[in-house]
Amino acid sequence: MSLDTQITDLAKNARAAARITANLSAEQKNQALMAIAAGLEAAKTDIQAENKKDSDAAEKAGLSPAMIDRLTITDKVLTGMADGLVYLAGLNDPVGTLSDSAIRPNGLEMARMRIPLGVIGIIYESRPNVTVDAAGLCLKAGNAVILRGGSEAIHSNRILARVIQEGMADAGLPKAAVQVIDTPDREAVNLVLKQEACIDLIIPRGGEGLIRHVVAHSTIPVLKHYKGVCHAYVDDLADMDMAIKIAVNAKAQRPGVCNALETLLVHDTIAPVFLPRVAEALKEAGVTIKGCQKTCILLPGTAPATQEDWEAEYLDLVLAVKVVKDMDDAMDHIATYGSNHTEAIITGDYDRSRRFIREVDASLVIVNASTRFNDGGELGLGAEIGISTSKLHAYGPMGIKELTTTKFVAWGSGQVRS
Amino acid sequence: MSLDTQITDLAKNARAAARITANLSAEQKNQALMAIAAGLEAAKTDIQAENKKDSDAAEKAGLSPAMIDRLTITDKVLTGMADGLVYLAGLNDPVGTLSDSAIRPNGLEMARMRIPLGVIGIIYESRPNVTVDAAGLCLKAGNAVILRGGSEAIHSNRILARVIQEGMADAGLPKAAVQVIDTPDREAVNLVLKQEACIDLIIPRGGEGLIRHVVAHSTIPVLKHYKGVCHAYVDDLADMDMAIKIAVNAKAQRPGVCNALETLLVHDTIAPVFLPRVAEALKEAGVTIKGCQKTCILLPGTAPATQEDWEAEYLDLVLAVKVVKDMDDAMDHIATYGSNHTEAIITGDYDRSRRFIREVDASLVIVNASTRFNDGGELGLGAEIGISTSKLHAYGPMGIKELTTTKFVAWGSGQVRS
Repeated sequence: MSLDTQITDLAKNARAAARITANLSAEQKNQALMAIAAGLEAAKTDIQAENKKDSDAAEKAGLSPAMIDRLTITDKVLTGMADGLVYLAGLNDPVGTLSDSAIRPNGLEMARMRIPLGVIGIIYESRPNVTVDAAGLCLKAGNAVILRGGSEAIHSNRILARVIQEGMADAGLPKAAVQVIDTPDREAVNLVLKQEACIDLIIPRGGEGLIRHVVAHSTIPVLKHYKGVCHAYVDDLADMDMAIKIAVNAKAQRPGVCNALETLLVHDTIAPVFLPRVAEALKEAGVTIKGCQKTCILLPGTAPATQEDWEAEYLDLVLAVKVVKDMDDAMDHIATYGSNHTEAIITGDYDRSRRFIREVDASLVIVNASTRFNDGGELGLGAEIGISTSKLHAYGPMGIKELTTTKFVAWGSGQVRS
Repeated sequence: MSLDTQITDLAKNARAAARITANLSAEQKNQALMAIAAGLEAAKTDIQAENKKDSDAAEKAGLSPAMIDRLTITDKVLTGMADGLVYLAGLNDPVGTLSDSAIRPNGLEMARMRIPLGVIGIIYESRPNVTVDAAGLCLKAGNAVILRGGSEAIHSNRILARVIQEGMADAGLPKAAVQVIDTPDREAVNLVLKQEACIDLIIPRGGEGLIRHVVAHSTIPVLKHYKGVCHAYVDDLADMDMAIKIAVNAKAQRPGVCNALETLLVHDTIAPVFLPRVAEALKEAGVTIKGCQKTCILLPGTAPATQEDWEAEYLDLVLAVKVVKDMDDAMDHIATYGSNHTEAIITGDYDRSRRFIREVDASLVIVNASTRFNDGGELGLGAEIGISTSKLHAYGPMGIKELTTTKFVAWGSGQVRS
């Protein structure tokens, strides 16, 4: 069977399975999630043996220790996957609920009914726990899912898929509701991206290169973010201690993630006092500063920032720092270099806090708190499948609700149009 | 200036204008809509003179009378455009409203704030009133818009764009918030579809060929429907008089639109009684039937339907008719041949009405009423910019709300993550 036929069949089977999963009760879906969680714990030895094949191969191939770390299913990672599914089972099921109901002048009763999206394709790199997390979230929302992980995690993903499918079968669900594409052939991804008749949404998770490839080749809608170039603007009316605490947390608490701070913008008036203080705290946290001209004058010995620094997503203990004239100057910088991900202001001023919230275009705009709060768990979504900086359908963290949509429903008594 | 540079500049100007329109008050936007409406009436003679150039050229080029009809800006069409803008000015402005507010355990207060999508590109064919309708809707929702109409309406679109921009300037709005691409070069469309950094959404309106071209070439999210293959299932427990009335209305009241009925599915048990009656009523309305084998036996002289008929969007006074075993058989047919547009059931049975509503996947699922109600106005959205059969962001008619999205906003008091 050609790869083309394989992928087309797989997509058709997913579409057929989605007709079934769309109509499952919350109880049936939760039973499947619990069965998969139990299966993961039961198959722990086998899963870790298969996972070792991947990490051994990665070591041989000379992958970085960080990459190998992300790949490895430790006891803690495995328990985390199972616990995540149990947590999902406890969340509310939004499918089938009605909203925006109205009775039209002709007596027609209408509403919007929340329904699953249908079939979701997830294309991701390295971390095999995405296989379980993504499958669980999609299933909870009533969707079928097609998973395509990285070739470096192929043994892990295969056995995880088997455990997931066995759990689903135990709960009476169709196995085709969760399918893993395990051919190493990269053409498989491009073929998935053309199954517009059977797949409703593609979510790519990984580096910018992967995501740009997916967007360029997909005829299916894509939810994604390319990168997080997040700013914090420290206003002249900011509480400086708070600003220092937030800057250090946003930059250094976990520098490798998309909601970490990349550029600090500081109001001209307070820069002479604030910059030496924040620089000291950042230095203690191991952060290197790249500064604008004024910053370099106020902080002698600072490396000068170039154009590239304003555009950089360092994902590292490096921070670009720029002195700005005022909030408008800061907002202009954000509009030019921001990635619509997370933007913070630290201020004690009422009017500026309101203007910043309204006028800055980002998936989270936050006052007097760390950029690190742009996260499904932190914002109360329960669980997230990623963060979107596209504005369509979802802008910000995507939870169960973002894996659903609404259709219109209407009840009549013989109405016709005239 | 190369076309590439022209389009890139135009997109950048739209992005800059969108930063302004996003923060206009409802009053400012409504003033602009009223100014444009007044401008249309004032420039009536000029508009119709320019429009005549297009219709004369269309006549010379041998376009069909229906096409020329769609192109012509009669007094009634012009008044309709102006009235539409006045109506829009009267609708609620959703921008800036908050929802899903919560206080997190750490004291962080969060909510979702409704915001404009940003920059919207509309790519459409022939009818020049789309220029005004689409510009008005996008503006009301706080967006900037780039319009690319068909070359056959180029003179009309140019003068309409001028009138729109003058109205906006009168109200103090940036002209770049509504821009018309008036080069006849078809490459312009492809260039627009690559301006991902500056355009947030593409809405194509026209034939399936145009829409497939847009989807295949766009890296920007697209909201669209390819076609409407709408079904009505007449259950054995249907009120037959009601079913006949609905079938005739859905098919014949306006056959050329996407929510018109294309296939009638009839329960086996009632087919011998129902088919002759509905066939007579349809015949009176000028409708030709293409029937399945059973239909052809019950209605001698009926042309037999082929595979193509089940897939057809006739947009004409032709109706495919199929006898089905039961509701499951009907739902299977709909899942196979439907276009996720509009699906109706006519039944007196409580359980079946509920199952059909829940299980059928279409942008409108309707009980005991005509498919023709899948329309923004009829469903109470106020005004619509089109119908989406993609499930992402919008499924069904798209009104002002569908031209907006939400961002997360949060207010803290120094919170950091641990």
